[in-house]
Amino acid sequence: MTHTVEQIAMALGAQAFGAIDIVITRAAEPASAGPDDLALAMNPKYADSLSEGHARVAMLWDGADWEALGLEAAIIAPRPRYAMAGLTRMLDAGQGFAAGIHPTAFVDPEAELGEGVSVGPLAVISKGAKIGAGSVIGPQCFIGWNATLGEGAYLREAVSIGARVTIGARFIGQPGARIGGDGFSFVTAEPSNVESVRKTLGDQGDAKAQDWTRIHSLGSVSIGDDVEIGMGSTIDCGTIRDTVIGDGTKLDNQVHMGHNVVIGRNSLICGQVGIAGSATIGDNVVLAGQCGVNDNIFVGDGVIAGGGTKLMSNVPAGRTMLGYPATQMDKQVEGYKALRRLPRLMRDVTELKRIVFKSNSDT
Amino acid sequence: MTHTVEQIAMALGAQAFGAIDIVITRAAEPASAGPDDLALAMNPKYADSLSEGHARVAMLWDGADWEALGLEAAIIAPRPRYAMAGLTRMLDAGQGFAAGIHPTAFVDPEAELGEGVSVGPLAVISKGAKIGAGSVIGPQCFIGWNATLGEGAYLREAVSIGARVTIGARFIGQPGARIGGDGFSFVTAEPSNVESVRKTLGDQGDAKAQDWTRIHSLGSVSIGDDVEIGMGSTIDCGTIRDTVIGDGTKLDNQVHMGHNVVIGRNSLICGQVGIAGSATIGDNVVLAGQCGVNDNIFVGDGVIAGGGTKLMSNVPAGRTMLGYPATQMDKQVEGYKALRRLPRLMRDVTELKRIVFKSNSDT
Amino acid sequence: MTHTVEQIAMALGAQAFGAIDIVITRAAEPASAGPDDLALAMNPKYADSLSEGHARVAMLWDGADWEALGLEAAIIAPRPRYAMAGLTRMLDAGQGFAAGIHPTAFVDPEAELGEGVSVGPLAVISKGAKIGAGSVIGPQCFIGWNATLGEGAYLREAVSIGARVTIGARFIGQPGARIGGDGFSFVTAEPSNVESVRKTLGDQGDAKAQDWTRIHSLGSVSIGDDVEIGMGSTIDCGTIRDTVIGDGTKLDNQVHMGHNVVIGRNSLICGQVGIAGSATIGDNVVLAGQCGVNDNIFVGDGVIAGGGTKLMSNVPAGRTMLGYPATQMDKQVEGYKALRRLPRLMRDVTELKRIVFKSNSDT
Repeated sequence: MTHTVEQIAMALGAQAFGAIDIVITRAAEPASAGPDDLALAMNPKYADSLSEGHARVAMLWDGADWEALGLEAAIIAPRPRYAMAGLTRMLDAGQGFAAGIHPTAFVDPEAELGEGVSVGPLAVISKGAKIGAGSVIGPQCFIGWNATLGEGAYLREAVSIGARVTIGARFIGQPGARIGGDGFSFVTAEPSNVESVRKTLGDQGDAKAQDWTRIHSLGSVSIGDDVEIGMGSTIDCGTIRDTVIGDGTKLDNQVHMGHNVVIGRNSLICGQVGIAGSATIGDNVVLAGQCGVNDNIFVGDGVIAGGGTKLMSNVPAGRTMLGYPATQMDKQVEGYKALRRLPRLMRDVTELKRIVFKSNSDT
Repeated sequence: MTHTVEQIAMALGAQAFGAIDIVITRAAEPASAGPDDLALAMNPKYADSLSEGHARVAMLWDGADWEALGLEAAIIAPRPRYAMAGLTRMLDAGQGFAAGIHPTAFVDPEAELGEGVSVGPLAVISKGAKIGAGSVIGPQCFIGWNATLGEGAYLREAVSIGARVTIGARFIGQPGARIGGDGFSFVTAEPSNVESVRKTLGDQGDAKAQDWTRIHSLGSVSIGDDVEIGMGSTIDCGTIRDTVIGDGTKLDNQVHMGHNVVIGRNSLICGQVGIAGSATIGDNVVLAGQCGVNDNIFVGDGVIAGGGTKLMSNVPAGRTMLGYPATQMDKQVEGYKALRRLPRLMRDVTELKRIVFKSNSDT
Repeated sequence: MTHTVEQIAMALGAQAFGAIDIVITRAAEPASAGPDDLALAMNPKYADSLSEGHARVAMLWDGADWEALGLEAAIIAPRPRYAMAGLTRMLDAGQGFAAGIHPTAFVDPEAELGEGVSVGPLAVISKGAKIGAGSVIGPQCFIGWNATLGEGAYLREAVSIGARVTIGARFIGQPGARIGGDGFSFVTAEPSNVESVRKTLGDQGDAKAQDWTRIHSLGSVSIGDDVEIGMGSTIDCGTIRDTVIGDGTKLDNQVHMGHNVVIGRNSLICGQVGIAGSATIGDNVVLAGQCGVNDNIFVGDGVIAGGGTKLMSNVPAGRTMLGYPATQMDKQVEGYKALRRLPRLMRDVTELKRIVFKSNSDT
């Protein structure tokens, strides 16, 4: 897990300066960096804190004078944030999961494990499950009946994957991610008050109290390549067809995806976002933390929604949205500002009424 | 898992037409249905997609001309959405959990298992736990000390149930549902700034920084018959008495129920709803996704709240609510509309001021 | 688990009256209390319900006339809510976890367990993990590689702690708490449309659709003494340094803490709060249920935020906040009231325009 400055720069497509044979053991913030650390100071605002630490080498902003900063060597990358991806991949010490099938794991004899698959302590691989070559199934994971995982999956502890779920290559599951629960779909024998409200936008009608009968999920979940699902996120099965997540899409922690939801490619769904049943989300969509998406609506490609935004109706491609209910971000900000000035506006109108009605009664 | 068209129609209380002895293996959407599938086209808008697929049999809307649609057989149900419940129950292939006690499960010798109970791999049943006849305890589940589950429970993988929790018949627990954590209840030795804020609606007073002492939960959780709890939902124990969920109530994924909460019968609590401590929710209430319920408030029977609604104070029975803070839905929608027109209103008032003050100074 | 009235009063620093040798088996609400229960009636409003139950002993409000209430003994504590902490600790029957290492647990030979540590069924303790003396590791817990837990930890079932996480003394983990997932941090090779939106507050620019490359978390999570984490809460690792939770801070259920977040001492973070990456939260902060904290912002000491508040920008110390977007609580309440009156205001302005423009055209 050690690399020379030169090796790191080469791997990142970055330039190395000075004593490029210094060996780096880890990355550190400038102020707390030791002599064998690579200090990360990709912005001039970190220049001062470099001198607080003991780094001999730093990754610096474009144009930095590394010698004037008292360093022995430096790496300068053209797009520092992107270089962080390569750097952190090189220096990641991982979780220390052992190779091989742990003796306490239960692997059904009718499961198929590809070459080099490792299975952690107390994990369960069910009948008919197929695990792609090189996959790591972490401790206490559960892989259900006839579920399929592509090559190179990496599952942290306690991930569970239900029956018939299919997942592409290089899947990452964070601790406690849950895929393939039954959808939340219930129906009453007679039309319910919810159905009345949806039709009338508020009037419950005279529906009687009734009990709920479950609609089972016959579909499962279908996930593309290069998808990641965060801690505690929950993905429901579809009712007739599968719930779908496209290639390259990443879900943060505690995301809820209802039944029949379809998300496209390369979308980012941040922490605690909830997507209600049968919503369709396009490609390259970014939903910030705690967003909500109404059931059965359509969110177009490239839509970006700020934190806490509740998308209540269809959103055309390319829009930037904010608020509850969501509007385009600039209109929402204009609305917030107007709301702040509202008490003064009310005083103005009161004054106007006093003058106008007075002057009017004068005439 | 195969049924004839006639068998399906009979089970659903629906009418069958044409070649009612065709054998169905699964349900499918019209466009992707194969010759042995039952295409689901219960709305005329799906008529066209039937011809894209290869279905010979479909479930159709009332009044549909199945022969004109090129089908060999058809099922027509009086309330198609309700028929879906019966149909999906018939065709659900399930999770493939094996019968019996898996050899890797740990069942305490002092636990009592009813007839026909199955326990999955690496599940734990603690001392004094009682599991009703016919129940399925999934892989890696945990049933705590003296917990009681009624007949016919169905627990998916990784469900956990704490000590002394009591649950009625036919309970369904989705993966990772958590019941019986300790309530979130802390107190400071001297009155805290939170207590000041609650009294004054904003003024923190001069309370000092203090640390928090835990109030333990002596109560547990009491759940009625026919309840379902979704993936990753968390139900806290009560402080002195139990937290309560009434018969027939269903919780979606990632629902949070604080200590002492009481929910009545046949309520639907959708994804990511949070119900703070000691709130009381009535019967037949529907809280859509991401709703919040304040602590210690009362939500009456039949209340329906739209997505993201934050109920901050008591809600009388029968109300339809929306917004943050919640108001009745029609008022909230009126408020949204007014907010949109606010910038124009401000320009109008500015213009009025200009004219009035000018004309006023003219006189 | 039984105590005399005298013993309880002494433990609480409270006064005991009457037959102080009566033995108490549990606490109960006044109306349901039996003859061996301690009825909790610390507020005069519970006086009537005492007579509905069969309590001989009650904990009463200051100044209560216990004899007139028909009791044989009474406890009166100066701050009843604080006394609840001591009382519930005394009477808590716990989860019944057995002492010792359960034979079905997997403890790596290179893990270090302090004196008196218990490990529940099917728990995993990984290589290099250190568990402090007297700790209870519940059933199906997972302790990762080189993770450290201080003395007296109490982990309920299914808690997971990732590699290199360090936790202080007396930690409490509720069922399914997850610590140490990888942070949600992704970058595109070229600047993305999200970066454009952040710069321009809404304009996505002409960024192309791109795929996301992961930035690994090299840091871990560092947690102080006396911290509690609720059911289903998820704490991400930091990117370069650790994510931090200070001494005495308590997290409720389903809280999400992103990478690099720092929370100070003695803060209370309630259910379903989400704190985005690199936010800094001070000491003695209280965030009520479903609050959100934007990434990279600062929330000062003693800030209190009401339920559902979304903190979008820095908050100075001592503020009481509410709303989305958050403002000071009194301004938010003023804004809500103004919004309610807005439809009437609009009618007023329409009337003013009619009169003014008419009277204006008259001149």
